[in-house]
Amino acid sequence: MSRTIEVCLTPALLHLYAIENSIVVVIDILRATSSITYGIHNGAEAIIPVEHVEDCLAYADKGYLLAAERNGEVVEGYDFGNSPFSYTHEKVNGRTIVLTTTNGTKAMHMAQARAHQVVVGSFLNLTSLCNWLKTQDKNVLLLCSGWKDNFNLEDTLFAGAVVHFLRNDFKHSDDACVVAEDMYLMAKDDLRTYLHKSSHSHRLAALNIEEDVQFCLKLDVCKAIPVLEGNKLVALKY
Amino acid sequence: MSRTIEVCLTPALLHLYAIENSIVVVIDILRATSSITYGIHNGAEAIIPVEHVEDCLAYADKGYLLAAERNGEVVEGYDFGNSPFSYTHEKVNGRTIVLTTTNGTKAMHMAQARAHQVVVGSFLNLTSLCNWLKTQDKNVLLLCSGWKDNFNLEDTLFAGAVVHFLRNDFKHSDDACVVAEDMYLMAKDDLRTYLHKSSHSHRLAALNIEEDVQFCLKLDVCKAIPVLEGNKLVALKY
Repeated sequence: MSRTIEVCLTPALLHLYAIENSIVVVIDILRATSSITYGIHNGAEAIIPVEHVEDCLAYADKGYLLAAERNGEVVEGYDFGNSPFSYTHEKVNGRTIVLTTTNGTKAMHMAQARAHQVVVGSFLNLTSLCNWLKTQDKNVLLLCSGWKDNFNLEDTLFAGAVVHFLRNDFKHSDDACVVAEDMYLMAKDDLRTYLHKSSHSHRLAALNIEEDVQFCLKLDVCKAIPVLEGNKLVALKY
Repeated sequence: MSRTIEVCLTPALLHLYAIENSIVVVIDILRATSSITYGIHNGAEAIIPVEHVEDCLAYADKGYLLAAERNGEVVEGYDFGNSPFSYTHEKVNGRTIVLTTTNGTKAMHMAQARAHQVVVGSFLNLTSLCNWLKTQDKNVLLLCSGWKDNFNLEDTLFAGAVVHFLRNDFKHSDDACVVAEDMYLMAKDDLRTYLHKSSHSHRLAALNIEEDVQFCLKLDVCKAIPVLEGNKLVALKY
């Protein structure tokens, strides 16, 4: 068992990790990587993550669906926002979607610059992701996207879930693994209640996305694992 | 209750925090801030933290005690290392000590550049520190020195202890507070055993400093609160 698993608590700490031989799992539970997982599961051909609303414009007139949301509202002229409920089979099957997500996109691009491979994780594909990681002869870095480079609770809880499920197959090599796993074990019976402790709980309540939050905490709704190929997230073939 | 308390998990995240109106508590439990607390408690006139062993040389021939340790050994020509047991009343009373400590010094200097005030915390002065912070009309940032900018367990546990003791007097404003406090509550009945989970436990064992570790986890051995004035840590008058 020479493979290691590590947890990077925010993208601002990514430079500390050697990831050239690692699979990096990007985590942005509320809501980017949950929506991406659900969209790929529902047959989206590809999802292109971009950092700014304006970046979507480069993709206008290509027949892509454009997803942009600011302050809980779909930006005028765009097809939908960041809610996972916008990524149903009916809406996304066979389509390419351009999605703005500040924290998640930044994390993906930073990881892609150095990592062996970049995939997307969420509670929605937890078991599929863990089972696949077990079959790969690579180190794993769980990269929490956080909130504007700050540590956040929900991404760390998910990282802890992955650490827990892989604990017999990988060697833990940092203290962030210990904390993420213990937090997950403390919170796992009621993740939603634990998240009420979060500094973001007021922000989330104000956004009126409680149904989204509940959905993003569901386990194993999807088998799909989105993988970053060039600038597109597509379904990993496994 | 408009004062806030925040936890910065490593110096690499300090830029994310507005600390102009904050008291920053620098934390480097194993062993810098524990040894500093114990030395000031035992009558040291001042302790000058420097980053590199070579920086000590600028203070040679001034009658100062020079403390430098690398790989668990006192550097040749120096008076002692980083063990708290070197900071007894007999050895340090009335003396000025120049101490090399990589992580702690860096954290102190980064904080000093912007903060209202920089003090030193450790389990050894937990209650005195918390009681004093309650009397100040300032925000508090708990700055974990970490290990070469990486998150570490022991500094976060101490931050969690402070968050817990100040929870009725300050408003929590970040997720790191939540995690630090919950970790502390999980581990508090046997901090030493919890630290065995740390990635550093092998490193610590190799250094043969088990007695130091046990001592650094003792509560309330000291009343002193070291405060940074210019380049010197001295006893806060309170």
